[in-house]
Amino acid sequence: MKALSSRENPRYKTLRALAGHAGRRGEATLLEGVHLCQAWLDRGLPVVQAIFDADRLAQPALAALAARVPAAQAVALAPRLLAGLESVETGQGVLFVVQPPAPALPARLADASLWLDRVQDPGNVGTLLRTAAAAGIRRVLLSAGCAAAWSPKVLRSAQGAHVALAIHEQVDLLAARTQLDVPLVVSTLEAAEDLYDAELPAACAWVFGHEGQGVAPALQAVADRRIRIAHDAQAVESLNVAAAAAICLFEQRRRHRQGSAPAVAPAAQ
Amino acid sequence: MKALSSRENPRYKTLRALAGHAGRRGEATLLEGVHLCQAWLDRGLPVVQAIFDADRLAQPALAALAARVPAAQAVALAPRLLAGLESVETGQGVLFVVQPPAPALPARLADASLWLDRVQDPGNVGTLLRTAAAAGIRRVLLSAGCAAAWSPKVLRSAQGAHVALAIHEQVDLLAARTQLDVPLVVSTLEAAEDLYDAELPAACAWVFGHEGQGVAPALQAVADRRIRIAHDAQAVESLNVAAAAAICLFEQRRRHRQGSAPAVAPAAQ
Repeated sequence: MKALSSRENPRYKTLRALAGHAGRRGEATLLEGVHLCQAWLDRGLPVVQAIFDADRLAQPALAALAARVPAAQAVALAPRLLAGLESVETGQGVLFVVQPPAPALPARLADASLWLDRVQDPGNVGTLLRTAAAAGIRRVLLSAGCAAAWSPKVLRSAQGAHVALAIHEQVDLLAARTQLDVPLVVSTLEAAEDLYDAELPAACAWVFGHEGQGVAPALQAVADRRIRIAHDAQAVESLNVAAAAAICLFEQRRRHRQGSAPAVAPAAQ
Repeated sequence: MKALSSRENPRYKTLRALAGHAGRRGEATLLEGVHLCQAWLDRGLPVVQAIFDADRLAQPALAALAARVPAAQAVALAPRLLAGLESVETGQGVLFVVQPPAPALPARLADASLWLDRVQDPGNVGTLLRTAAAAGIRRVLLSAGCAAAWSPKVLRSAQGAHVALAIHEQVDLLAARTQLDVPLVVSTLEAAEDLYDAELPAACAWVFGHEGQGVAPALQAVADRRIRIAHDAQAVESLNVAAAAAICLFEQRRRHRQGSAPAVAPAAQ
């Protein structure tokens, strides 16, 4: 393992530059923390560089990670240099430089998926990925205008969901509509059925939209169902997009869970 | 209305200092944006200072707000000075300095409430307040160790929920348990009933905990019900706390909504 302790080292300068634009379209990104780096290796994905806190390399969790990475890719970094790469104040002493997978969109989309239309906030995008994975969804499509899915902020919010998902960025969602073999279900406040009265298919493509503007009208127009969550509108105008998605995805999961009644509107139960 | 255009003005310096620690316990805070300032006035709450972008005062939304504030409290600020107070990049040209209400905890707690045990992330706390208000809850208790409820980040995430809620900060939740006349329902991953199998009372105190550690064991020990949300644990370890709360609060709302079946476990439906 190479040791690195000078800020002037060209390899460190390259890492510093990467930390500033990690996860931007097509670029490498930084995975932070033991859990995420473990999950990455567990999926058999390649590591460009594995960076460890030189002072903490003896810790069992870090030593175990180091043992799984080819020595040529591993770097022991002086702690004060590592701090310049981490996005959190108290990191765990390990960072992986990786190239995010960029899976091709299948010709036909027959599985459950989550579609995000210009969701801008990295925390929201990360929570949406995490909630989708928790609900059993394995594919997420993001339009242009969404926060970059592999940025450190999104990675942190998603808590490992990235490695469980096929993530497609910069997707033309209107074009993807034509590849869809399951219903397109849009969350919207206007001219929509109440979530609890609507029939929810076992698998569908759920669309959630921009924090202020919601789902684009053109995409709403090609939806099979338009769903709204009735809420106390005197108190707040709307729900947070990630909260709304959690409610919808888990209501669908409740309806179709094993041992539960078949999917029918509650009114008919 | 007083005009202010120098960084050296003592009143501006005081505002700059406030922007650095707004909403800390017992201190004044800054409400940003037309919607929140309107909601504040609509509730008849007092404004310490109303600060407007001098160049945008003619805009109808700002002019309407200015007309509702006593002239002695209003300040027209040079735009470049205003930027030094706002927490967002593109503000709407209005900020209110206000003293957050600090309502006393009633002797008996008989209404529905949301309890937060050391929830640290301001975005999570704000989303939790917004979701609670949307679900019809009107009272929130925060333990020591939670993000400051009236900080600009929490205010921004909550999207106006603050004015719909009685917010109690720095509450000893174990002590508050003795004042409770409705069930205490804790969200936890261990030794808990499945949300969809559990009976949910129409009104209860819901407890959600620290992002990493969950609800403190001592508080779990005095709960009437322990609830977990079954999720795909192979994909992610847990749900985001605000997503989990959205699922629980709206499942309770679904069960008790008008015209729906009485609250029984789905298995019995």
